[in-house]
Amino acid sequence: MINILRFSDSDFYERFRRIEERADEIPAGIEETVKEIIAAVRQRGDEAVFELTARFDRLQLSAASIEVTREEMAAAKASIDPRSLAVLELAARRIGAYHQKQKQQTWLSTEEDDVLLGQMVTPLERVGIYVPGGKAAYPSSVLMNAIPAKVAGVSEIIMTVPMPGGEANPFVLAAAAIAGVDRIFKIGGAQAVAALAYGTASVPRVDKITGPGNIYVATAKKQVFGQVGIDMIAGPSEILVINDGSGNAAHIAADLLSQAEHDELASAVLVTSCEQMALAVQQQVEKQLQQLRRESIARKSIDAYGAIIIAADLAEAIRFSNRIAPEHLELAVADPFAILPQIRHAGAIFMGHHTPEAAGDYLAGPNHTLPTGGTARFFSPLSVEDFVKKSSIISFSANGLKRLGKEVVHLAELEGLEAHGRSVSLRLHDPD
Amino acid sequence: MINILRFSDSDFYERFRRIEERADEIPAGIEETVKEIIAAVRQRGDEAVFELTARFDRLQLSAASIEVTREEMAAAKASIDPRSLAVLELAARRIGAYHQKQKQQTWLSTEEDDVLLGQMVTPLERVGIYVPGGKAAYPSSVLMNAIPAKVAGVSEIIMTVPMPGGEANPFVLAAAAIAGVDRIFKIGGAQAVAALAYGTASVPRVDKITGPGNIYVATAKKQVFGQVGIDMIAGPSEILVINDGSGNAAHIAADLLSQAEHDELASAVLVTSCEQMALAVQQQVEKQLQQLRRESIARKSIDAYGAIIIAADLAEAIRFSNRIAPEHLELAVADPFAILPQIRHAGAIFMGHHTPEAAGDYLAGPNHTLPTGGTARFFSPLSVEDFVKKSSIISFSANGLKRLGKEVVHLAELEGLEAHGRSVSLRLHDPD
Repeated sequence: MINILRFSDSDFYERFRRIEERADEIPAGIEETVKEIIAAVRQRGDEAVFELTARFDRLQLSAASIEVTREEMAAAKASIDPRSLAVLELAARRIGAYHQKQKQQTWLSTEEDDVLLGQMVTPLERVGIYVPGGKAAYPSSVLMNAIPAKVAGVSEIIMTVPMPGGEANPFVLAAAAIAGVDRIFKIGGAQAVAALAYGTASVPRVDKITGPGNIYVATAKKQVFGQVGIDMIAGPSEILVINDGSGNAAHIAADLLSQAEHDELASAVLVTSCEQMALAVQQQVEKQLQQLRRESIARKSIDAYGAIIIAADLAEAIRFSNRIAPEHLELAVADPFAILPQIRHAGAIFMGHHTPEAAGDYLAGPNHTLPTGGTARFFSPLSVEDFVKKSSIISFSANGLKRLGKEVVHLAELEGLEAHGRSVSLRLHDPD
Repeated sequence: MINILRFSDSDFYERFRRIEERADEIPAGIEETVKEIIAAVRQRGDEAVFELTARFDRLQLSAASIEVTREEMAAAKASIDPRSLAVLELAARRIGAYHQKQKQQTWLSTEEDDVLLGQMVTPLERVGIYVPGGKAAYPSSVLMNAIPAKVAGVSEIIMTVPMPGGEANPFVLAAAAIAGVDRIFKIGGAQAVAALAYGTASVPRVDKITGPGNIYVATAKKQVFGQVGIDMIAGPSEILVINDGSGNAAHIAADLLSQAEHDELASAVLVTSCEQMALAVQQQVEKQLQQLRRESIARKSIDAYGAIIIAADLAEAIRFSNRIAPEHLELAVADPFAILPQIRHAGAIFMGHHTPEAAGDYLAGPNHTLPTGGTARFFSPLSVEDFVKKSSIISFSANGLKRLGKEVVHLAELEGLEAHGRSVSLRLHDPD
């Protein structure tokens, strides 16, 4: 049975900390292993990538076979059933339409005589999208990573997806074709991240790497950060449902379980101001758990990291939510828009009783790559902004420099940077 | 004398790689030292911070003395000369006005019946600004970091600045007062980064850390990334000047030297399509070097990492610039706006002959915290965006879910995530 807790329990925060810190520490040895893999790929390129892929994925690659051909991509798309193709295309259209709204314009401010200031927005040239293989090879992840890059105007989208034993997921390849992925490499793990970050004879170096992965992939992304951009450091997934007693206990329980089935480390928490609802959801979770194909995973998640918390009122529930900054936040209340302004941190907010998280995971439009583990305090959902960068534009006329030059020289002197000042004063004395 | 190179030199790319890679490798031992410092601060909090500050900054702190008081901040502001105060306030106003234009709005799309989608923009709650101490304690850095945070609406801005031997720079404290910094702690190095990232009894935990620092600070920021946000991984500074033969050789030389005086690792490069200009700038660099107070630093930078490159034409110069993605890019050409669209990557672009980099460093308005070492391929100037984060908003009505629910269930089944599908199908069968 999912635990019922109260904020007033003497051990509440201690118990809750166990949920919050469930993935804080990287297991010993992983950082070193990843460092060695990255060094090997930097030094020996393809050769190291082939060796590591043979070892971890039981797949013997060569320069001739590392890449999925255009024909294989097209064949995968042609091979899937028409209904699945239509649904993936619907999701792609909706994701594209939402992300179009995130596009930012280059601007130039002409308010001031003699001084033009602006900000130029340009797409990244080449990006790498990491797609997990095996059981977690999700076509939706391909769409959610590639489409924002495409909308941003990225010239070349490179995807890596491990194919353990050579097995490819046709839906993943079809999603890549739909989203406009340019090239796909059959590699994964830290070796794929290293190849994307530094380039090898076969794999081109990219400017940024996005996409989910296991602890090796996440650690590798952190280690190459700075050499390339990365999206965020992602941990296991979580949902917080805020409830005011309104709504349907079976629906809320189903939403908690949709999170719990992901992963034994996933966390699903309901905080409700209604004791009756707490008990009803507890019963429903137990009942529905028994009907799930992924019962074993979901039960481990619910037992270790699931909870129903009874709050004194909605305000207490909201304070708690802001404290933990959940990845997915459902406002399962009668009037969600009334409390939206009080939400300070959350990856995505699902409004009201008819918006299950699953709708957002697949095709509502917003991105499903969201900050986890409280990082919604400072990270944002993956977006078009992840695939562009800005350049400041500064343009002074001779008059502009004449008007502001003395102040620049003063500040340069204040900081002891004489040559900075001289570059201005020389022009003040002799403008041309 | 600054070297003159040609793209056609057989060893050109080899020589240039030495400039590009001048700060690529973190010296051995630093990562481990920083890791130990962070672990010490996490485990022993203030005690470790006090010990490390005594050791590295020769300053004995206590819980009572670690913080600069409000009165000390006000006194510092009152102590500086009126002209300096006025110039700092002018810079603050101009920086504020520019960054106001970067503010993004929360939006909600109402185009589609039954489905509302949006993106909510919220400020970070508490941020930490790292300000270097000693010789590099620059008031302009305080303004450039604190003002975007203030414009973003950050509730609490915490600054750390080491005070070796207890010595404080009154201009730095005055700038903090002008910019609206809330609290200042007299600490620096990796221990300051660790204190901000994890919190101690005296230093509150922040959501993001921005600001420049030495290799220890940069390494610490990378190590705590994920626990908190960081702005970027910054290396030594650089300028690239593109010239078409127009303009004044003395001005261009002065701009190169304004970069070179920063740091022995700084890099100043001119690429010009005019051989005569190349020679004239070479002479001017030598002449002006001899007049500089910081000649010794500037000369080391110019000798090791300075260059004048002769290009066949402007197009070749631009291709080179796009290849190296410079932090500062001066378009010292007759018609800079004509070539702006061809610039793919640069931190800040200084347009034409009357816009020396120094103007942008201090008070034009755009931020002077810029991506270095080629990272303008994927990083952007520090901006208001660094101090906000977004939450996706998704709101389906019962009708909206009815219209799209079957497709969600289909995708969930495709990915083997039955419970995801059930959270929707339950609602389709029984909407309330």
